[in-house]
Amino acid sequence: MDKYCFGVDIGGTGVKLGLFDANGSLLDKWVFATRKTGDGKDILKDAWDFIVSKLEEKAITKDKILGIGMGIPGPIMDNGDVLELPNLGLGYFNIEEEMSKMTGLKVKAGNDANVAALGEQWKGSGKGYNNMVLITLGTGVGGGIIYKGNIIAGSGGAAGEIGHLPVNQGELERCGCGKCGCLEQYASATGIVRLAKQLVNSNPKASKLADADVITSKLVFDLAKEKDPLAIEVVDEACRYLGIALAGVAQVLDPEAFVIGGGVSKAGDILITYIKKHYTSNVMNALKDRKFLLASLGNDAGIYGCARLVLSSNA
Amino acid sequence: MDKYCFGVDIGGTGVKLGLFDANGSLLDKWVFATRKTGDGKDILKDAWDFIVSKLEEKAITKDKILGIGMGIPGPIMDNGDVLELPNLGLGYFNIEEEMSKMTGLKVKAGNDANVAALGEQWKGSGKGYNNMVLITLGTGVGGGIIYKGNIIAGSGGAAGEIGHLPVNQGELERCGCGKCGCLEQYASATGIVRLAKQLVNSNPKASKLADADVITSKLVFDLAKEKDPLAIEVVDEACRYLGIALAGVAQVLDPEAFVIGGGVSKAGDILITYIKKHYTSNVMNALKDRKFLLASLGNDAGIYGCARLVLSSNA
Repeated sequence: MDKYCFGVDIGGTGVKLGLFDANGSLLDKWVFATRKTGDGKDILKDAWDFIVSKLEEKAITKDKILGIGMGIPGPIMDNGDVLELPNLGLGYFNIEEEMSKMTGLKVKAGNDANVAALGEQWKGSGKGYNNMVLITLGTGVGGGIIYKGNIIAGSGGAAGEIGHLPVNQGELERCGCGKCGCLEQYASATGIVRLAKQLVNSNPKASKLADADVITSKLVFDLAKEKDPLAIEVVDEACRYLGIALAGVAQVLDPEAFVIGGGVSKAGDILITYIKKHYTSNVMNALKDRKFLLASLGNDAGIYGCARLVLSSNA
Repeated sequence: MDKYCFGVDIGGTGVKLGLFDANGSLLDKWVFATRKTGDGKDILKDAWDFIVSKLEEKAITKDKILGIGMGIPGPIMDNGDVLELPNLGLGYFNIEEEMSKMTGLKVKAGNDANVAALGEQWKGSGKGYNNMVLITLGTGVGGGIIYKGNIIAGSGGAAGEIGHLPVNQGELERCGCGKCGCLEQYASATGIVRLAKQLVNSNPKASKLADADVITSKLVFDLAKEKDPLAIEVVDEACRYLGIALAGVAQVLDPEAFVIGGGVSKAGDILITYIKKHYTSNVMNALKDRKFLLASLGNDAGIYGCARLVLSSNA
């Protein structure tokens, strides 16, 4: 009998859902808007109602569903305890127990960055690397750590928070987290724009970057590929901080591969080239030859990882 | 029937051995000099001859021995593969298989810093903390990572090499590893003396540190406890780099506790106080309240961890 599972990746604006077969092939996927009003737990109900409607549509009976894997945008313990998700209006509760009670199905949950890492390790660029780190360069910088094929969640669900690695003791501006000198201040899309503006302001060098009406991280990388010297300086600087941070991660964990995802990673190989340059000069010899790869699952990494949570616990 | 196991912690100058009962109580311990000539594998033979003589002495028959746990001073894989130990004249081989063939006993092996961490987690200050990091401040800076009660060895056996975390991009002098700005350059006994000499030379401030014939890390901490301002500056600076590094480790792993060992840790609470100060200002809020403890097993941490390797695999 064919079996299935669902991956449900809850974000601040949208909830992504994926229907998978028991081998982890994605059969169909959807997105609906995250409900902003009422009890945060209504989001779980919305997800279940959505799943039920899709099961009816596809004439799949509930007994064929192996379980639901979930990703949530905040710290979560290995046992499913969610500490607090103020953005979603949620306080302490056990998401696996509550969702399981509501649905009558097995539920496994993880942090969104961690399930994305698990997804890339299982079906994306990280395939074949049991010890892998995903770094997501988007509005912020996120991370997820896979060791021996499993998520490292940490004792309080905060493992893999690579965006807040301290990388610059000289920084005077504050990061959103309240500290100064976090990786996110240089390597997120916002951080790259910030670096670009600083360099443009302090540097009289002729550059298309200085002439731009609006600086975006995409523009920085596009101009760097055109050999604009100032844009190259920005890319080099952002990747210098990434190289330092990932060298630190390697000294701690000795992973086989780093996978770079998020919107900024669309810049492509130039990003890998510059990160590797700075990683290599900041890491000990035994760790220099680690792999650096671009993520390949895009926004689907999370639902893949959610499915993996369920399917691996059925193995 | 009473059962026993041996812990054998191989160092560059001495081999430590411990006889444990099945509950992990240390019954007796010894040290003999590491053989410097001949094939490195002779060290394994020496250890086995030593164990056999002690079994005879104590009238314990071999069938009562559950196994031998071993610590070695270099990278080792989870499966017992040793990559290279040039100091001991050893190239690639599988230490668990070779030692097991020689002895007819079960053999489990790990890196020395990692087994020390396992020892502290099992029977020392780290007891009760399943997610724990040991930092050893000696001639160098070593580290070992315990996650869910097990060693994280990494994909090439180089996980936990915290001494070579990059913490200072401004450093011009090279670390022994060839890089510039490693934690070890500031927080090892040698590193602390180096910082002290730099401060003494650049600072005309009256200080007993400037008057000393020979500066040692012990002297630095002793004078800091006497409120010598220059000595306090040195302690603060060394611990600043430790705080940055351990904040980085926490952002990656989210451990429950950090245990500080090695000769420098004999300085006591002052070390913890200054490390915590800098850790707290470099780590995100959710990670600020992690425990900092002084190691309690001293030089025996390694043999305890070796015993644990054997006993946990019998559980």
